[in-house]
Amino acid sequence: MNPANTPIVEPDLKTVAELAAQLRVDSIRATTRAESGHPTSCMSAADLLAVLVSRHLRYDWDRASRTPDNDHLILSKGHAAPLLYSVFKAVGVVSDDELMNGYGRFGSRLQAHPTPALPWVDLATGSLGQGLPDAVGIALAGKRLEKLSYRVWVLCGDSELAEGSIWEAIEQAAQYQLSNLITIVDVNRLGQRGATMLGWDLDAYAKRFESFGAHVIKINGHDLEEIDAAFARACSGADNQPTVILARTVKGRGYTLVEDQEGWHGRHLPEAFANEAIRELGGERHLTIRGPKPTQAAPAIVQDSEIDDELAPPTYEIGTAVATRAAYGSAIVELGRRRSNVVVVDSEVSNSTGVDLFAATFPSRFFEMYMAEQQLVATATGLSVRNFIPFASTFAAFLTRAHDFIRMAGISGANIRLVGSHAGVEIGTDGPSQMALEDIAMMRSVFDSTVLYPSDAVSTVALVEQLANRTGVSYLRITRGAYPVLYSNSTPFPIGGSKTLLTSGNDHVTLIGAGVTVHESIAAARILSEMGIRARVIDAYSIRPLDGSGLRRAVDETAGRVVVVEDHRPEGGLGEGVLSALAEGTEAVVRLEHLAVRNLPGSGTAAQMLAAAGIDADAISQAAQRLVNRD
Amino acid sequence: MNPANTPIVEPDLKTVAELAAQLRVDSIRATTRAESGHPTSCMSAADLLAVLVSRHLRYDWDRASRTPDNDHLILSKGHAAPLLYSVFKAVGVVSDDELMNGYGRFGSRLQAHPTPALPWVDLATGSLGQGLPDAVGIALAGKRLEKLSYRVWVLCGDSELAEGSIWEAIEQAAQYQLSNLITIVDVNRLGQRGATMLGWDLDAYAKRFESFGAHVIKINGHDLEEIDAAFARACSGADNQPTVILARTVKGRGYTLVEDQEGWHGRHLPEAFANEAIRELGGERHLTIRGPKPTQAAPAIVQDSEIDDELAPPTYEIGTAVATRAAYGSAIVELGRRRSNVVVVDSEVSNSTGVDLFAATFPSRFFEMYMAEQQLVATATGLSVRNFIPFASTFAAFLTRAHDFIRMAGISGANIRLVGSHAGVEIGTDGPSQMALEDIAMMRSVFDSTVLYPSDAVSTVALVEQLANRTGVSYLRITRGAYPVLYSNSTPFPIGGSKTLLTSGNDHVTLIGAGVTVHESIAAARILSEMGIRARVIDAYSIRPLDGSGLRRAVDETAGRVVVVEDHRPEGGLGEGVLSALAEGTEAVVRLEHLAVRNLPGSGTAAQMLAAAGIDADAISQAAQRLVNRD
Repeated sequence: MNPANTPIVEPDLKTVAELAAQLRVDSIRATTRAESGHPTSCMSAADLLAVLVSRHLRYDWDRASRTPDNDHLILSKGHAAPLLYSVFKAVGVVSDDELMNGYGRFGSRLQAHPTPALPWVDLATGSLGQGLPDAVGIALAGKRLEKLSYRVWVLCGDSELAEGSIWEAIEQAAQYQLSNLITIVDVNRLGQRGATMLGWDLDAYAKRFESFGAHVIKINGHDLEEIDAAFARACSGADNQPTVILARTVKGRGYTLVEDQEGWHGRHLPEAFANEAIRELGGERHLTIRGPKPTQAAPAIVQDSEIDDELAPPTYEIGTAVATRAAYGSAIVELGRRRSNVVVVDSEVSNSTGVDLFAATFPSRFFEMYMAEQQLVATATGLSVRNFIPFASTFAAFLTRAHDFIRMAGISGANIRLVGSHAGVEIGTDGPSQMALEDIAMMRSVFDSTVLYPSDAVSTVALVEQLANRTGVSYLRITRGAYPVLYSNSTPFPIGGSKTLLTSGNDHVTLIGAGVTVHESIAAARILSEMGIRARVIDAYSIRPLDGSGLRRAVDETAGRVVVVEDHRPEGGLGEGVLSALAEGTEAVVRLEHLAVRNLPGSGTAAQMLAAAGIDADAISQAAQRLVNRD
Repeated sequence: MNPANTPIVEPDLKTVAELAAQLRVDSIRATTRAESGHPTSCMSAADLLAVLVSRHLRYDWDRASRTPDNDHLILSKGHAAPLLYSVFKAVGVVSDDELMNGYGRFGSRLQAHPTPALPWVDLATGSLGQGLPDAVGIALAGKRLEKLSYRVWVLCGDSELAEGSIWEAIEQAAQYQLSNLITIVDVNRLGQRGATMLGWDLDAYAKRFESFGAHVIKINGHDLEEIDAAFARACSGADNQPTVILARTVKGRGYTLVEDQEGWHGRHLPEAFANEAIRELGGERHLTIRGPKPTQAAPAIVQDSEIDDELAPPTYEIGTAVATRAAYGSAIVELGRRRSNVVVVDSEVSNSTGVDLFAATFPSRFFEMYMAEQQLVATATGLSVRNFIPFASTFAAFLTRAHDFIRMAGISGANIRLVGSHAGVEIGTDGPSQMALEDIAMMRSVFDSTVLYPSDAVSTVALVEQLANRTGVSYLRITRGAYPVLYSNSTPFPIGGSKTLLTSGNDHVTLIGAGVTVHESIAAARILSEMGIRARVIDAYSIRPLDGSGLRRAVDETAGRVVVVEDHRPEGGLGEGVLSALAEGTEAVVRLEHLAVRNLPGSGTAAQMLAAAGIDADAISQAAQRLVNRD
């Protein structure tokens, strides 16, 4: 893997041993100074990272991070952050002063768990079982899209192997033959509260990883030669398999008093213990060591060659019945034509979410994650690290499966786009297990998120277009059934805006809906009109950010009377978003009717479901009448 | 397993073949009539269920469901509901008329995916990869708590094996030696949109299940003798292992036109096709068949014998600093003394969540789920099926990992209690990955949920007590740090109530907090008092249901001025809950300041974190001043 003409700096193993001791000492110093942290979890993995960073990780530390050619290093066991930061000191990008006075401190980039506040950290870790799944996305980009030679190294703990997400990740890594993914498991036998289930039974772990398709190497994680040989084999070995290195290690290794002892997880060493440990480790060192650099210059991202010129941008005629999921399917193909780094991932439901056409049109940019929603989101997150534009789709209800991954993507500042189809009771027959009624609450609460819920095909197309350039975690909620196109093709739909679909200029009441309830609101306005009640209908397609000023104005202009109607639980959805916006101050006294899904739905037609939940046109019109008649 | 003196009805395999044909025909008839459903997914598994229900499932259909001695049958592949309902017809508990005119219809209990609306259905399924994890909880109850001889049979699809939750489940089933858990996998090779990753590679599946500790039997899922022998072996075989039967099947089996064909998932047969299929299957049948009954009479739930009389109910002195997580730990032990069916599960963090004392005191009623939060919730859900009183604890942030399981528990009407510690930015140093800031939004949106967030030890104890009798999904949010006890030991804390901690009887402004922000609100009131501003402080310990009338009264009495402050994202939390309550109608015009965590926190002390998020005493006092000075 290292051509002869590439200069490689490779400190000998004696120097590496010194480095390993330094990493242990620095991990102890930093955590004792901060009176917080996980030194023993650092000490078990110090030899592994010392060998890796000095002899195998190809990384140009002087150039900006996230360059196309650097290897990636993901600390899946994020609580070993002091070890990672000690590595950063050892390669000379973080000073000893910053390490000692920054780690765990307010305002410091050296947080207790790594985040991309540091330029060499791709992703936030600390929720265990996520680093490896995310790394699969990065490795997928390198192997299947960019075709670059960078490797993705992941350091996992053994406790986190109990997370099912680990097995979703390895299965996908094997399916996509990610030989560029090298997972190192620090099997130190001890979790937070005691022994792990499998202890040091490397054979048991090996069987599991092998059964999911990985190439497994078992080593003593404190034998530098074994580590070195394993890393070399991992890089040159199995061509079509991810490698997993199972390293038998000792928690707290290097300080006899705490080695392999329970009760030391997540505890810094008191100062006297720390001093004793540092003495046992041979004292402080301040080596600076650099390992090999990348061997390959950075090419541009490979252009997709399968562009189909026959496809026209999707346009629609007003009044035609089109499902927004179908419009999404068309829009993403069109976007794929113009943006070569648009990538689509889906969880075994591409014929329902509408992305089967994208899969057929751009097979090299479509990745099937099968029924593994955590890995679906993790793959998108990993792809975003490499600056791809991932769209990840499944049934909206099943995005809840990946909530913790979405939360962490928000903390990472990952630019990912989630698409949830079959939202709400509108799906009808399939019943409550398939109905997303909590997804808006989930997605609104994610840091810096965008939540969009278009009501027709034209607005869907316009929003998909903008999502390609949107930063942070975005969510597009789409509907199963076909509903009339409401807008002409040129209509702009800025994120953060809303649309007034009906108004007399002198309305009695405002009806605010999104998605399917926009259509019910229009129907309600017609019913109300026959009674002489003039209703303004607003399409709140941008749920976060919400068009607060526009909504406040409408409510003020309708004497404070407003019906908000949503195909979602009353908690955390559009209704409460509107309440938050109105709480910022209206001139009128607000009188609000909040229609939302408060029942436990069963099976039935979409119309029966909307009626039973009290969110159909009749229910809206009755709510509006209540408001108007109250005066 | 079947003592000679037990009368067993066992139709011969020729009759079973007739039954299997009937199940296929009925599945086709019901779905064609409803114009909806998954007939081909039923047809692949018809032989498996025909053998099971007629010769192995020990079930007294004439007695009420959920009796202690009946076997359990969990349809993890919930979309095969028509097959299950055809079984219910065959055993005579559902009429042909109900099956034909009920399936998938509005108001019917025969929903498109099974729910406990049916007395023979323990749990809602339909979100794949959940039936087996839930079944682990049921089997755990039978094997380890009740020590009854019932078996738990689970029918899985092959697509759902891609869910990581399956491997969490098998790992736990093996750890707890659940030989009473028998998983049948209907390996029909085809998922929703095409072939599964592994197709008919039963050996590959077998390696995975074996590596996680299961006893595996591979069969032809259409050979009745092989099926029959496998079920017999599963019941009498491995004493200390769960059994997994991998059945090679053909999707659509029985109707040549659709057998093993893509494009038929989730599609009913058009009427002409249905008629042809029924002809090919030998026409309609209306057999009634009963299999064996349970062999064991129902004993009461085993009393825990490890009760420690030395433990006193926890009481606290006002002003003492106690973490609510510590109070929870004490309360759950005390509850465990008096309620023998209180069971605690935890995910490798019992020394942080406070339940390590329970684990030590009642080892037989504590189950370590290691780091597998989906299985944590699934185990609780399964235990609730057997009428235990499960409390499941982990870091509140990591409950998001199990969101889909919690959602489904709500649909199941499961009585489970989730406890999330380390809520909010209050945790300080460990940083955003460990901070639950979205959990209240998640839990409020769950159907029929209860959300509690006590501020001190006394209220924690009082609420834990009530949770034992609470139906539905409950959530207790607890705090890392120690804060002064605010209440005397006898104070009642009804769910749905609130407490006014400070009031002058003539206040300028209401401060509403919960948990840690109650303490910040008290401190703010002191600051305000020095300025001559009288603040009322309300402890909204019951976030759902919220004390709407109490809060409205307080806001009315303080001229509409209210500060809501929460250690949570502004979306979907306490603040929006209060807004929803106030929207039901106040006399005063509401002027609200909503303080919540809008920033991306890093590391630091609790005080630094609360200040940086703008939810500490200073921020509250400033918000209150803004409100008062606005007039």
